[in-house]
Amino acid sequence: MPDPFTPLPAHKFSFGLWTVGNRGRDPFGDVVRPALPPTEAVALLGEVGAWGVNLHDNDLVPIDASPSERDRIVKDFKTACERNAIVVPMATVNLFYDPVFRDGAFTSNDPRVRAYAVQKTLKAMDLGAELGATIFVLWGGREGTETDACRRPDEAVKRLREAVNYLCQYSIDRRYGFRFALEAKPNEPRGDIYMATTGNYLGFIPTLDHPDMVGVNPEVAHEQMAGLNFLHAVAQAWEAGKLFHIDLNDQVSGRYDQDFRFGSANPKSAFWLVKFLEDVRYDGPRHFDAHAYRTEDYDGVRDFARGCMRTYLILKERAQRWNADAEIRELLREAGSNQPLPSRETLLAQSFDRAAIAARGLAYERLDQLTMEVLLGAR
Amino acid sequence: MPDPFTPLPAHKFSFGLWTVGNRGRDPFGDVVRPALPPTEAVALLGEVGAWGVNLHDNDLVPIDASPSERDRIVKDFKTACERNAIVVPMATVNLFYDPVFRDGAFTSNDPRVRAYAVQKTLKAMDLGAELGATIFVLWGGREGTETDACRRPDEAVKRLREAVNYLCQYSIDRRYGFRFALEAKPNEPRGDIYMATTGNYLGFIPTLDHPDMVGVNPEVAHEQMAGLNFLHAVAQAWEAGKLFHIDLNDQVSGRYDQDFRFGSANPKSAFWLVKFLEDVRYDGPRHFDAHAYRTEDYDGVRDFARGCMRTYLILKERAQRWNADAEIRELLREAGSNQPLPSRETLLAQSFDRAAIAARGLAYERLDQLTMEVLLGAR
Amino acid sequence: MPDPFTPLPAHKFSFGLWTVGNRGRDPFGDVVRPALPPTEAVALLGEVGAWGVNLHDNDLVPIDASPSERDRIVKDFKTACERNAIVVPMATVNLFYDPVFRDGAFTSNDPRVRAYAVQKTLKAMDLGAELGATIFVLWGGREGTETDACRRPDEAVKRLREAVNYLCQYSIDRRYGFRFALEAKPNEPRGDIYMATTGNYLGFIPTLDHPDMVGVNPEVAHEQMAGLNFLHAVAQAWEAGKLFHIDLNDQVSGRYDQDFRFGSANPKSAFWLVKFLEDVRYDGPRHFDAHAYRTEDYDGVRDFARGCMRTYLILKERAQRWNADAEIRELLREAGSNQPLPSRETLLAQSFDRAAIAARGLAYERLDQLTMEVLLGAR
Amino acid sequence: MPDPFTPLPAHKFSFGLWTVGNRGRDPFGDVVRPALPPTEAVALLGEVGAWGVNLHDNDLVPIDASPSERDRIVKDFKTACERNAIVVPMATVNLFYDPVFRDGAFTSNDPRVRAYAVQKTLKAMDLGAELGATIFVLWGGREGTETDACRRPDEAVKRLREAVNYLCQYSIDRRYGFRFALEAKPNEPRGDIYMATTGNYLGFIPTLDHPDMVGVNPEVAHEQMAGLNFLHAVAQAWEAGKLFHIDLNDQVSGRYDQDFRFGSANPKSAFWLVKFLEDVRYDGPRHFDAHAYRTEDYDGVRDFARGCMRTYLILKERAQRWNADAEIRELLREAGSNQPLPSRETLLAQSFDRAAIAARGLAYERLDQLTMEVLLGAR
Repeated sequence: MPDPFTPLPAHKFSFGLWTVGNRGRDPFGDVVRPALPPTEAVALLGEVGAWGVNLHDNDLVPIDASPSERDRIVKDFKTACERNAIVVPMATVNLFYDPVFRDGAFTSNDPRVRAYAVQKTLKAMDLGAELGATIFVLWGGREGTETDACRRPDEAVKRLREAVNYLCQYSIDRRYGFRFALEAKPNEPRGDIYMATTGNYLGFIPTLDHPDMVGVNPEVAHEQMAGLNFLHAVAQAWEAGKLFHIDLNDQVSGRYDQDFRFGSANPKSAFWLVKFLEDVRYDGPRHFDAHAYRTEDYDGVRDFARGCMRTYLILKERAQRWNADAEIRELLREAGSNQPLPSRETLLAQSFDRAAIAARGLAYERLDQLTMEVLLGAR
Repeated sequence: MPDPFTPLPAHKFSFGLWTVGNRGRDPFGDVVRPALPPTEAVALLGEVGAWGVNLHDNDLVPIDASPSERDRIVKDFKTACERNAIVVPMATVNLFYDPVFRDGAFTSNDPRVRAYAVQKTLKAMDLGAELGATIFVLWGGREGTETDACRRPDEAVKRLREAVNYLCQYSIDRRYGFRFALEAKPNEPRGDIYMATTGNYLGFIPTLDHPDMVGVNPEVAHEQMAGLNFLHAVAQAWEAGKLFHIDLNDQVSGRYDQDFRFGSANPKSAFWLVKFLEDVRYDGPRHFDAHAYRTEDYDGVRDFARGCMRTYLILKERAQRWNADAEIRELLREAGSNQPLPSRETLLAQSFDRAAIAARGLAYERLDQLTMEVLLGAR
Repeated sequence: MPDPFTPLPAHKFSFGLWTVGNRGRDPFGDVVRPALPPTEAVALLGEVGAWGVNLHDNDLVPIDASPSERDRIVKDFKTACERNAIVVPMATVNLFYDPVFRDGAFTSNDPRVRAYAVQKTLKAMDLGAELGATIFVLWGGREGTETDACRRPDEAVKRLREAVNYLCQYSIDRRYGFRFALEAKPNEPRGDIYMATTGNYLGFIPTLDHPDMVGVNPEVAHEQMAGLNFLHAVAQAWEAGKLFHIDLNDQVSGRYDQDFRFGSANPKSAFWLVKFLEDVRYDGPRHFDAHAYRTEDYDGVRDFARGCMRTYLILKERAQRWNADAEIRELLREAGSNQPLPSRETLLAQSFDRAAIAARGLAYERLDQLTMEVLLGAR
Repeated sequence: MPDPFTPLPAHKFSFGLWTVGNRGRDPFGDVVRPALPPTEAVALLGEVGAWGVNLHDNDLVPIDASPSERDRIVKDFKTACERNAIVVPMATVNLFYDPVFRDGAFTSNDPRVRAYAVQKTLKAMDLGAELGATIFVLWGGREGTETDACRRPDEAVKRLREAVNYLCQYSIDRRYGFRFALEAKPNEPRGDIYMATTGNYLGFIPTLDHPDMVGVNPEVAHEQMAGLNFLHAVAQAWEAGKLFHIDLNDQVSGRYDQDFRFGSANPKSAFWLVKFLEDVRYDGPRHFDAHAYRTEDYDGVRDFARGCMRTYLILKERAQRWNADAEIRELLREAGSNQPLPSRETLLAQSFDRAAIAARGLAYERLDQLTMEVLLGAR
């Protein structure tokens, strides 16, 4: 009998080059793993059973590479992808590592930095298109402040809009067909980052020139850093037709950005998330934006990558079991219905027996306990 | 010389009936103050110098009042408002106190609860209109979950939309002219509340039938509970033309809903907020949605209310001083400019000296330290 | 085959009267369940299979009861306990509900309040002793501030010490044999509560007159409100011989006090906790200080109580499986050893190959993924 | 008239070498400032008016320096200190940067790592003693976990105790006279760090062989990361005679470790802290463990350092004003008294009029508002 939790291409599991290639540097410590060349990262991903690889421009091409170096690197990378049957569904741009971006990129006070950031992004779009990516993620990690003295935050919104509009026009003109996915984060590396939550981006998108081209890329860790319910953010994005991409990992609330193995901090919230994505038949990539503990060598990195996918598949199986559970189905049936609101005339004439309605127990403790038992494999 | 920090009608300071009338009940303790009848609350507000009073339907009219009781109460209240020169700029509806709402109102699984919630809101709109309110706030305090087993969150979004559309249509048909202001909160009293942040509502509004009628009512405490930068949320709302109302109070992050006296938990973030509202000439009510400590009698409630307004006015004066400070102005001038992005052709041809750009210090430590000194009255 | 997750007296599962008797009042809503008389609560606990019941003085005896009422109530309660084979392992005192305690009890600025609080506690000790309790919990829920203007915090520590010393002496003189268990909480219902974490109490205890009589009562929710690792606090207390009692429930970090069903917010951290308690053979009560959702009637309260115990027992079984797993055992064996430090002379002469030591992967990703699979019943 | 906020040696303001020498590296970005040699850092500190400098061993001496290199470096450093009239009040050891410590130092599973960590600390003590330091800080930044699978947390406590006892004995034997100050932190760079709060260390110290030699080094940011009231932790340490050192900076709760300029995130909590330290006449160093924003060059670093001290002195002056304010004094006088508890006989006979006691307002809103006005220089 084959292992039911084996990753397959149809699962669309992808990893960023920066995830398996993460070297374990942190604010208080040095790198702990040797550099992993992109071609070897792709081989590693093929070995563990992933479907796709994503990248920032500089994960692949050094920021100061000459055009010919760039072309050689890209060629080798495409060969490695083909050899390992790995696709590139998404590309993005690094607008945070170089000191030039220390006060932001698209929202920097310095017009030269804003211009450079847009130019760099256009080139990253060229690269992504060349590699076959159809989703372009924008994470404005440095678009923020340590002190609100430095810039009016409404000004930052305007600058951000100008930049995203510029990028959309470029994609149109070059016929790249990109769908842009905006990724929110509340803080770190800045004291505060503008567009702190997925909701803020959902509010920003309708103000753009081409709102249809732009959606969101919610990340588990980023919403959970602020203690928010990630499922609710994902569901709102999905319902609005804006779930263009998703970043899976795990995170304890109210802390630094941990990017833990998917499901490892809280399997229950991961369960609700997997159940939702499968229930609504989300068919985009399941991208793991996480990295191995600093205690690991590259065998540990393989364990980490396999663990992300395996836990997803276990939770997916648990979700199917949940959906099929007769007692759970009955409890849901009793819980209520989607009947629309009555017409106004009817409604205004209606009288309600509040006490009677309130007296009925809703059996949510039972429902949640059954969920626990399905999740823990005890039912 | 008159006290420069005396509240005046032009400042548009308002308080909810539930704020000065808060009796100090909490999850672990009983009420500590006697009930304050609405007419006396209005007198108290007049005495301390407020301009307006806001209310939930049941702050004024008991949930089971007969039509004639209701009319008498409303009449007395209007008289009290006139006598004390207090206006009613905003009204809202209580969809959280009665046990019938224990699993939500507009998003409840029970269609009877949803219908009752809408009916109750229509009547609250009638009441608000009768009192002259032009802003109608909706805070869906019970629209949430303790377990996501009970309801698909995208279903909740749909129900919420149906309800808000219904209310807008009612306002149009009755020619009430209400502007609806949606108020987000991440949690409490529910484990998680849908539409956790102001950003989520900014994303929800464009999906409504009448998006122009609907904006947001950001509350300091609600964004800060999630550790978010309140100013940034307010600025995004303002920039989108959606800052229809604002709830001022204070809150320590990552805690229960504290509703402290404005500015008392963190005067620095309160300073940035006041400065923004004054800089952009926000001309809506400055509503204090806060309450006195449980240690207080009604003299303490007066101290509390006076303190909210006085701190606002001190911070407003500090903001003027900040704007006028020559050294601050010079630092801001040097910080950058709003020059738009170059044309694509120019941009793609441009080359940037990253190292040179990154070498220049931005003097934000100086700028923030000057801010501290202005704030602390030491400059 | 009997259900392996059925609660038995040997498991020492206890509930507070206030837990199953919780009526669902919260800061924004009224009670949703009718009062549950203590004798009926005991019957409910017997029905669901609990072993013990705990109580605050006023959970059983109203604060204004006459001596004869008090005696009758206590007699009926003892009868009910016997009839339902329920013991009373722990008692405590309510120093938070009555408005007299609005600014604290043992640390109040008012000497009359401090005296009354101690007197009330002595009487609660009499009651606990009469019911056979040997553990006396002290939770100073109101010992705190909203503003540090009101009291020097070192003064509060001194007052707290005076009170606890007083209580210890009373227990000695009356030969009650109580072991006092101090329960920390960071905030709510006060803005900040003194002795915010279990660690603070571990530091306070050695400064008492009778440190041997006093230990701690860590509560899951209270440490997790501050985002702290509960297991670590429990382990430190255990290692110091101070784990006198424990309060089990669940809680999402950075929020109001939720008191959710045990294990329901994060089964992984609950797993580590259960594993630790079982591994060290903790033999005190497993007290569930939680309550049913507000959506429930008393059938739901039963579901809640059964769920707490059932989840504990599932996790206990998972912990046994973890301990017996051959691959996990091998990974732990390889991870290191407890070999003591060498003598100073040897140590100073030693040289270390840092790079070689650091190159070995520690396989913690593998270890944690195996944990996930044991926990989820997928291994 | 001299500037009243000019730092003087009597203020005992100190900075770590790593603070003004911080190069601005973070998890998402590279260094932004060139290296600042220790001798230049000392000159910079002299220039801005600091009194002392602190250091980790490797802030001064590279981890692989030969003995002769080490001696030369130390000699040059002492010369620089003398030239700039800067003292070295405290020394510490870096047990976190090198990859050998990726799974902890004193609590590592690998006995070689534990031995190396202790050896490294002994040498750091030699260095500290040579430089005249009398306080030795221990921050176990890597003593923690990402998964509790790897180690029983009570085992970690035992290893930590073994190490600290070892160090104490070394200080005794070498007659170094060190007072050890243990520094807590809840997380980062580890998922969870053992001894998460100052309270945990206060509980740990009495279990050591030489508890009198060991106290704590509370850090503003570290308690505030967990949302705890820093003043309360400091006051408990002070009251227990354990405030051996203090780390001043600022931090927004529930976030990555920010190490902002003192007072800049929340001047009100900084005010209470300064007031306490001055009121109790704390006479140890005021150590600023913070660093300049990443937007700054070394002029900005100077602004940062000057700002830390200036804000401290402004708050100190505000505290004096608060203590002298007649209205505040009267409110405090009315608030209560320290009268000890009555004898047991008296107490048990006493009767209390709860309602009357509870009816009196405590005027804490007034007290806190007066505090705001003193703080903001508006009174």
